[in-house]
Amino acid sequence: MSQTWATSGLDLHLDLDPAAGRRAALEHALRDAVRTGRLAPGTRLPATRRLAAELGLARNTVSAAYDQLVAEGYLTARRGAGTLVAPLAHPAPARTAPEPGPADAPRHDLRPGSPDLTLFPTADWLRSTRRALGAAPADAHGYGDPRGRVELRRALAGYLGRTRGVQADPERVVVTTGYVRGLSLLARVLGGPIAMEDPGLAFHREVVRHAGARVVPLPVDEDGAHAFPDDVTAAVVTPAHQYPTGVTLHPARRRALVDWARDTGAVVVEDDYDGEFRYDRQPVGALQGTAPDHVVYAGSVSKTLGPGSRLGWLVLPPRLVDDVVDLQRHTDRQAGAHGQLTLADLITSHAYDRHIRSCRLRYRRRRDLLVEALREHAPLGVSAGLHVLVRHPDEDAARTAAAARGLALGGFREHWHRPGPTTPQGLVIGYGTPAEHAYRPALRVLTEVLAGTR
Amino acid sequence: MSQTWATSGLDLHLDLDPAAGRRAALEHALRDAVRTGRLAPGTRLPATRRLAAELGLARNTVSAAYDQLVAEGYLTARRGAGTLVAPLAHPAPARTAPEPGPADAPRHDLRPGSPDLTLFPTADWLRSTRRALGAAPADAHGYGDPRGRVELRRALAGYLGRTRGVQADPERVVVTTGYVRGLSLLARVLGGPIAMEDPGLAFHREVVRHAGARVVPLPVDEDGAHAFPDDVTAAVVTPAHQYPTGVTLHPARRRALVDWARDTGAVVVEDDYDGEFRYDRQPVGALQGTAPDHVVYAGSVSKTLGPGSRLGWLVLPPRLVDDVVDLQRHTDRQAGAHGQLTLADLITSHAYDRHIRSCRLRYRRRRDLLVEALREHAPLGVSAGLHVLVRHPDEDAARTAAAARGLALGGFREHWHRPGPTTPQGLVIGYGTPAEHAYRPALRVLTEVLAGTR
Repeated sequence: MSQTWATSGLDLHLDLDPAAGRRAALEHALRDAVRTGRLAPGTRLPATRRLAAELGLARNTVSAAYDQLVAEGYLTARRGAGTLVAPLAHPAPARTAPEPGPADAPRHDLRPGSPDLTLFPTADWLRSTRRALGAAPADAHGYGDPRGRVELRRALAGYLGRTRGVQADPERVVVTTGYVRGLSLLARVLGGPIAMEDPGLAFHREVVRHAGARVVPLPVDEDGAHAFPDDVTAAVVTPAHQYPTGVTLHPARRRALVDWARDTGAVVVEDDYDGEFRYDRQPVGALQGTAPDHVVYAGSVSKTLGPGSRLGWLVLPPRLVDDVVDLQRHTDRQAGAHGQLTLADLITSHAYDRHIRSCRLRYRRRRDLLVEALREHAPLGVSAGLHVLVRHPDEDAARTAAAARGLALGGFREHWHRPGPTTPQGLVIGYGTPAEHAYRPALRVLTEVLAGTR
Repeated sequence: MSQTWATSGLDLHLDLDPAAGRRAALEHALRDAVRTGRLAPGTRLPATRRLAAELGLARNTVSAAYDQLVAEGYLTARRGAGTLVAPLAHPAPARTAPEPGPADAPRHDLRPGSPDLTLFPTADWLRSTRRALGAAPADAHGYGDPRGRVELRRALAGYLGRTRGVQADPERVVVTTGYVRGLSLLARVLGGPIAMEDPGLAFHREVVRHAGARVVPLPVDEDGAHAFPDDVTAAVVTPAHQYPTGVTLHPARRRALVDWARDTGAVVVEDDYDGEFRYDRQPVGALQGTAPDHVVYAGSVSKTLGPGSRLGWLVLPPRLVDDVVDLQRHTDRQAGAHGQLTLADLITSHAYDRHIRSCRLRYRRRRDLLVEALREHAPLGVSAGLHVLVRHPDEDAARTAAAARGLALGGFREHWHRPGPTTPQGLVIGYGTPAEHAYRPALRVLTEVLAGTR
């Protein structure tokens, strides 16, 4: 039953849905009228008796609705002055930013940073969710250990030991909502200055700065990071596959880095962002495995399942556990339990291994196709990961030409701490990003663009 | 079909369960043998052809199993050298701290802060996960808007408007991993000093301090918070149901608080931690609805589904959106997509409403039983939420006596900013915490303890 009520010059649409209740409907209509300005501040409302008669409602119903809206601040009631619309000042706020839509996505996307999201193993994930939540104790839905669910920490300890040579005691594993979260926690606990690879991912430098720590450059050459400074709290490195150059940290450098950490007391943060993907040989084991008291191992599912899952982990030296856990507890409490339990099941059921293996085959094929397409412009770095760096004399020109054909590429210069006129230029090409069917077309455009801009 | 396979001096028990698949069984047996050391590092495995013949399996099955275990790091394959057991070096490290077990849980738990976790709607959640992930676009698995998935922000805007009178434009909703995360972000963006209710939850004061902001007390009386100070960036309040006193912010105080925010430029943070649970009348609408430019509305699923889900939200005044989103992006990137999509489906399918209604009936019954049991010691505050505060002349004595009977209770004194000898004492009793079957026994012990310590 719907009716329009007009009194004292007011117009209220009352949708007296019997299910919702008459009082709720009246409250809703009044609230709406105040909000939209149909009932202006200061307007006196009709007496409850009169309104009740007009609407065919009990007087109590109207009184209760008025009381409710007085309590909520929409109306004011003053003895002797009746019930008035409260002096609210809240115009509907302007939209602050448009939602980014699929229209913003480039036709061909070879930017680095993302795996092929269409490969997300939905069926496996759902199966593991069902199994994990079905078996979960009730306390899985409650507050728990700030380090994360023990089921996942145990599964990770086994998995990381087996596949990456990490010495991972579940007690020293902290599950986070991804690498950024882990880096942010570490930077706040350690303070600065923190040495970060130059070149390296600019966004991660911003993460460290947002945590209040200063960033100093850690030079990278064809053997990886070197010239470790004396006066820092930590060095953040990508030993298995340097980002973005793609080189591997030389065995002598690995030893030097660990020695440096032992001598200075600084911490090495090992960002193993794509350690699952090595194509020409077994992946180099984690640096952490050789010095677990000096190296933080950091990983995530962002390259294996996709960053939307927001699941990452730190394996910490014993001396850092308490501080990191304390900060985690006071900034996040813990990562979400359902995703953690699901990932634990995915790992222990070996569906995670199978998925990675199938992705590895695909990405390897894509890399082979890319290297073939690039011909003489052989990429730097080892056969691994989801991106390659190729040198280019004018990256802006190449990226502009690519953009004109609907192809998005990553640049090299932005990765340097202090880019200048002589900074090496190039293109960072992410071959993991497109869906399978979209890869060859993107590659074709890339080849044409490169042929035209060199 | 079970068989033991012996070759090259090795002993493998193969349980060739037809349901599990022969390849999976072979992988499992090999993995197990490597893990337990029955296959020592460096051991050469038989050629695939030979093993296939011995086991009566297709050669492809054996090759695939070897490949999988190479990928997992259990085996290595070198051209010309065959397949070897990998040199694994990961002895189980010593545990640094024992995992807290169910043995630590009290027999009767009436501490506040948790809903009944056995009520988690597993079937609904799984149904929504299946539906949401089935329908999700691939980009749901990727990096996305730091505010969270638009599906959830839209669902929340509708839900919060409908049930709590919140003016929630999806553009100004930021999904977080819970209230603590939201409070931490706000404290870092706003800086201090921040006024927090006295008494109030001590842990939240610690969260604000960990974010680097100073905390000043905001006095609370039977009409809620008052005496809003001039020199703060924000006041954090619990208007619908003050924690822990249980009072509701008086309508005049609501107006005064909003006026104060307008005059001083400070922000009101409305912690609507249990706004879904009011038993004697319609819940008081959110303060935010009356002043969305001055009030941050903060909520979560911690009391409706359980804190383990780690899903919360802020509805922000326009002027705060950019700074909060920037900090969210640089400390967390975004909340996990799967949980967000699941909750969005739960809300839009109305399963969330149904679940809350059913919880509300249960908790109301529990509160009635509790009030009846407390008899003359009527609790303070309104009929709402999941806890009551009762005054007690000696809370330590009462809690000690309770603990001796296996009953855990919350204290009142710890909620005060500066507890001293004259600080009011009492017990904060959480009637939401126990499972249904455990509630009456807990209540019985409580009654006996109170009778013995007053």
